[in-house]
Amino acid sequence: MGPKGEKKTAAALFYKLKRPSTLQHSQPTSTTMVVKVYGPVFASPKRVLVCLVEKEIEFEGVPLDLLKGEHKDPEFLKLQPFGTVPVTQDGDYVLYESRAIMRYYAEKYKSQGTDLLGKTVEERGQVENWLEVEAHNFDPHVFNLTLHVMFSSKLGIPRDENVIKESEEKLSRVLDIYEERLSKSKYLAGDFFSLADLSHLPFTQYLVGPIGKEYMITSRKHVNAWWNDISSRPSWQKVQQLYPAPL
Amino acid sequence: MGPKGEKKTAAALFYKLKRPSTLQHSQPTSTTMVVKVYGPVFASPKRVLVCLVEKEIEFEGVPLDLLKGEHKDPEFLKLQPFGTVPVTQDGDYVLYESRAIMRYYAEKYKSQGTDLLGKTVEERGQVENWLEVEAHNFDPHVFNLTLHVMFSSKLGIPRDENVIKESEEKLSRVLDIYEERLSKSKYLAGDFFSLADLSHLPFTQYLVGPIGKEYMITSRKHVNAWWNDISSRPSWQKVQQLYPAPL
Repeated sequence: MGPKGEKKTAAALFYKLKRPSTLQHSQPTSTTMVVKVYGPVFASPKRVLVCLVEKEIEFEGVPLDLLKGEHKDPEFLKLQPFGTVPVTQDGDYVLYESRAIMRYYAEKYKSQGTDLLGKTVEERGQVENWLEVEAHNFDPHVFNLTLHVMFSSKLGIPRDENVIKESEEKLSRVLDIYEERLSKSKYLAGDFFSLADLSHLPFTQYLVGPIGKEYMITSRKHVNAWWNDISSRPSWQKVQQLYPAPL
Repeated sequence: MGPKGEKKTAAALFYKLKRPSTLQHSQPTSTTMVVKVYGPVFASPKRVLVCLVEKEIEFEGVPLDLLKGEHKDPEFLKLQPFGTVPVTQDGDYVLYESRAIMRYYAEKYKSQGTDLLGKTVEERGQVENWLEVEAHNFDPHVFNLTLHVMFSSKLGIPRDENVIKESEEKLSRVLDIYEERLSKSKYLAGDFFSLADLSHLPFTQYLVGPIGKEYMITSRKHVNAWWNDISSRPSWQKVQQLYPAPL
């Protein structure tokens, strides 16, 4: 029984690999605010960025040099006391935790851009359900694969073949359930694209790309159709174009 | 770097310890529906129950015998394909994942019982933020303590003193951040009780009780005041009374 709660530390290590240059995303928007998004653009920040693009919200990247420990600077810790990214700052309003940020902007600007929460409280309930499934059933296994297949050598973490094998097996079982679900509805929460689908984009991109497990998607008819659909959205293409590196 | 995603399995094991009798919670309510709540009453189901009590929603417990594998029965898997609890069924409407269930009922019946989501979209954003903090920063460490201090011998899992020590240290650092937060607002999301506070109840009860780490709460002035406040709510007292055992 391995200890839990390792993710924050491991994720923090990823950020050492690349420091993106400052980004000004200037897509036309119906609002005048600019949301600051702090942090190197790893999976969780990408989740936030694609949401902001879908909602047609202008944002500005604020890079942090984690090698210099900028995420532990007192000024940054005033924004995010746990010292992790992403963080958004919108005037004086600060949020962290990628899925909380997405929910906030999706709700605050519900009628702007793509509606990502469903039309009714029941649809939103399904969005929440599958967003939690993503966080607790999908993410842990693909995160382990990302860590041990993509980054172990770069981060000096021992590549653990048992973890890789076990994570692949567990993820397979999860994707079998997704296959069944997606045989009944086009998207996870129903016949509408939502935060639940969007939240899968960054890590699934790793899975089909640098992790080299594309077969896990393509071998499942409905999962594959879903992935082709959501990964071809202009919002995701835009974020991929802005941050083409694995990080 | 330990593997992630162990929690579901470990949590499932807990349910072997006790099978509660069928519960009919008949608190007066302004609605006529009865929400079925499947599963033995461990921490996550308790989170759902206290939410339903706060919202004055009538519910009926539907026990599952996990020793008999009832959570893997085809009929149950139609409700919850991952084979875990809790699951709620409200007419034909099914949800799982405790925090998704709470969000749904808190939103659907926003004006009934206690408002648990805040009054504005900004307040709800903070509720979401701290609900995610609970899930990703607080829960993993207190879960490890629960597993290794309370249940290792009963479950035949080796008690790992290193995991206990590391989890206690990490939880201490998290609670230091809570102390700072709670010195500025009465509750985690602001000066209003919300799902973010409520979600901490079951595992914090273990921490101050059977885990034997009450000092982690009482040694922090504001955390202690917060805990005394939220744990004395009639909703939590009611759930504790219905399910007095550690499980």
